[in-house]
Amino acid sequence: MNRYWSELARRLSPYVPGEQPQIPGLVKLNTNESPFGPSPMAIEAVRSAATETLRLYPDPQSTRLREVLAEYHGVALEQIFVGNGSDEVLAHAFVALLRQAEPLLFPDVTYSFYPVYCQLFGVEHETVPLDDGMRVRIDDYFDRGGSIIIANPNAPTGIALSRADIERLVGARADAPVVIDEAYVDFGAETAVGLIRDHPNLLVVQTMSKSRALAGLRVGYAIGHAGLIQALTRVKDSFNSYPLGRPAQAGATAALQDETHFQTTRSAIIHNRAGLTAALTGLGFEVLPSSANFVFARHPNHTGHALATALRQRAVLVRHLSGPRVSDFIRITVGSVPDLDRLTDALAALLATPSTP
Amino acid sequence: MNRYWSELARRLSPYVPGEQPQIPGLVKLNTNESPFGPSPMAIEAVRSAATETLRLYPDPQSTRLREVLAEYHGVALEQIFVGNGSDEVLAHAFVALLRQAEPLLFPDVTYSFYPVYCQLFGVEHETVPLDDGMRVRIDDYFDRGGSIIIANPNAPTGIALSRADIERLVGARADAPVVIDEAYVDFGAETAVGLIRDHPNLLVVQTMSKSRALAGLRVGYAIGHAGLIQALTRVKDSFNSYPLGRPAQAGATAALQDETHFQTTRSAIIHNRAGLTAALTGLGFEVLPSSANFVFARHPNHTGHALATALRQRAVLVRHLSGPRVSDFIRITVGSVPDLDRLTDALAALLATPSTP
Repeated sequence: MNRYWSELARRLSPYVPGEQPQIPGLVKLNTNESPFGPSPMAIEAVRSAATETLRLYPDPQSTRLREVLAEYHGVALEQIFVGNGSDEVLAHAFVALLRQAEPLLFPDVTYSFYPVYCQLFGVEHETVPLDDGMRVRIDDYFDRGGSIIIANPNAPTGIALSRADIERLVGARADAPVVIDEAYVDFGAETAVGLIRDHPNLLVVQTMSKSRALAGLRVGYAIGHAGLIQALTRVKDSFNSYPLGRPAQAGATAALQDETHFQTTRSAIIHNRAGLTAALTGLGFEVLPSSANFVFARHPNHTGHALATALRQRAVLVRHLSGPRVSDFIRITVGSVPDLDRLTDALAALLATPSTP
Repeated sequence: MNRYWSELARRLSPYVPGEQPQIPGLVKLNTNESPFGPSPMAIEAVRSAATETLRLYPDPQSTRLREVLAEYHGVALEQIFVGNGSDEVLAHAFVALLRQAEPLLFPDVTYSFYPVYCQLFGVEHETVPLDDGMRVRIDDYFDRGGSIIIANPNAPTGIALSRADIERLVGARADAPVVIDEAYVDFGAETAVGLIRDHPNLLVVQTMSKSRALAGLRVGYAIGHAGLIQALTRVKDSFNSYPLGRPAQAGATAALQDETHFQTTRSAIIHNRAGLTAALTGLGFEVLPSSANFVFARHPNHTGHALATALRQRAVLVRHLSGPRVSDFIRITVGSVPDLDRLTDALAALLATPSTP
C-alpha cells in the first residue's frame, strides 16, 4: 500500500480464487473444472481463429455467438449479453441493476465474490441466513425491499432451488431486479430461463467454464428481458468495448453447437457425482445433496481445514473455505473416476490413521 | 431504460468505438488496426493453445506472459500488470489510482474513453486545453492538485511529448499518480518506461493491439513501481480473477519474442505514414505531425463530417469524431500501401468534384 492508492483500493478485500499450481501428477479437485475436454468442435474453432485476422478487433457485440445462444435458449438476440467469463457479467450486473436504493440481498453462505463486488461498486447489502439444512429459504426474501442475487445451485453447498421456487420469488419481488446465477445449473438443477418471458425483473447468468469445459476461454453470458440487457450493455460499453477476443467468440460459438458432447459429458459428471457421494458417505462423511459438479461434505471427526491440508500432502487438492459453518466442510470437484478414486483412497488412508490431525 | 436500472446505468454515456462493418472490399482505416498480420509465432502459439487444456482455468496471474514482458522492458515481474486489452487496464487504473480527493486532469482533446471511466467510477475530473497547435502543454499540469492521465502520443492528434517533458511532469507532480497511456508509442514516440525506476508515481500503459497486431486477442499491460501494480491487482482480483484466457496469454507471450517481425512492421507503418502525409498535404490537407499509426488531418474547404461521409460512399472508412476543434478533422489509420492509395484516390476524386458537400 502506498500514498498513490485510491481510498477504495485501500479498503478492498479481493476475492481469492482456488489455487492453480503447476504440479505434475496433482489431482486437482479445487476449482470445479470439467474432467473432460471441451467439444472437439470448439477446439477446432479456436484453432481456426488463429490467423492473420487476429490483427483486427473482434466483433464488439459478439453477434454470432449471441445469435447461437439466443437460438439455443429460445430467446431473441437482444435478450443475450456476453462477457469475459460470468464473473465479468456478474460484475456488470452489480453496477447496472443490483445497485439500488435499498440493500441488495443474498444468502449468508454463497459465492464469495458477491460481497467483493459490493465493496468495489459501493453496493449496500444484507445477507439472509440459510436454514439449518444449509438451504436457501425463498420466503425470507419476499417482504424486503432490495434487489436479489441467488446462485442456483448455490455455491459452495451445491443445493438447488426448484424452478417453482424461483418463479414464486421473481413474482413476489416484481419490484426489484433478481439475478439467478446458474453457473452450475447444467448438472441437475432446473434453469429459470423459461421464466424470463413473464418476468421482466429476472436476469439469468450462465457460464461456458463448467458444463462446456471452456474455463480457459473466459466466456459467460446473461439472459433476460431486453431492458435488462440494455443496462448491462451500457456498463460494458463504459468499461471495455471488446470484452471477448476472436478465439473466445469462435470457440464458444462452436461449443454450443455440439449438443452430443454437452449431454454426454454432463451425464458422466452426474454419474460420477453419485459414485463420489456414495464413497464419501461410506467413509462417514455427511454430503449435502448436490446438483452441481462438486460436493460439499464434512466429517464428524475432522475439520475441513485438517482434511484439506492432509489431502494436499497426498497431492490431492480440494477447496476449503473459511467462515461460519462452511469451514467444517471441504468442497470437492466431481472429477474423472481415476481422480475420484485417488481422492477416496487418500481419504480412507488418512481417516484410518489415528495420528491424522 | 426501465425501472430496474440503477441510477448509474441511467446516467452513463458509453464510449462509442469505431464501427466494425462486415462489408467485403471495404478499405478500413477507422480503428487503427495494423495492416500487417501478427507474428507467425503468435498465430502458432494461439493454435497450440487450442487443446483439451481449455477445460482448465488460465493462470490468473498470467505469470509467463508477465515474465516475458518484464524481461522485454527491463523491469521486475512485480512491476507488470496485464489485462483484457489496455482499456481494461486503464479502467482498473481509474479505480485503483486516479480516483483521488482532487479532480483528475487530462487534456480537453484526448482518448474519449477517459471521461467515460470517470462517469462509471465516480472520478471527478477537469480538462486542460491543448494549445493552438493541438499540443499538450506540460506546464499546465504543474501547479494543480489532482492525478493525471495523458496519452502519448495523444489521440486523436497523434502528436507526441518528449521523454524529457514526461520526466519534468512526473518529477513536478511527485505527489500524485501519473498515467501515461502509450497505446501508440511504438510508432515513433519515446517511451516513459525508463523513467519508472526513479518515479514511483508513474504508470505506463501499453497494448498488444496496435504495434503487435493482436487487437483480436485483447491484451494490454501496465508497467510501474510494484506499489502501483499491487493496487491494480487488488482491483482486478475484486472484478475478475482470470482476465486473460489461455489463447490470449500464449499468443501475446509469443508475439513479444518475435523482435524481427515487430521492428519490420512498425518501420513499414512509419514509412507508409510519411507517404500518406505527403499525399494528403499535396491534396491541400493540413496534417498534424503524427507519431502514431494514424494521422489527423483537415481540409480548408471541407468539414470532417463531409469528408468521412463522402469517403464512406466510396467504401473507405475513416474515423470522424465530434467535439470542438476535432470535428474539423478526419482520423486516418496508416494502412497498407494499396489501401492508402485507394484512400488518396478517393479523396482526389471527391475534392475535384465541385458538387461534393
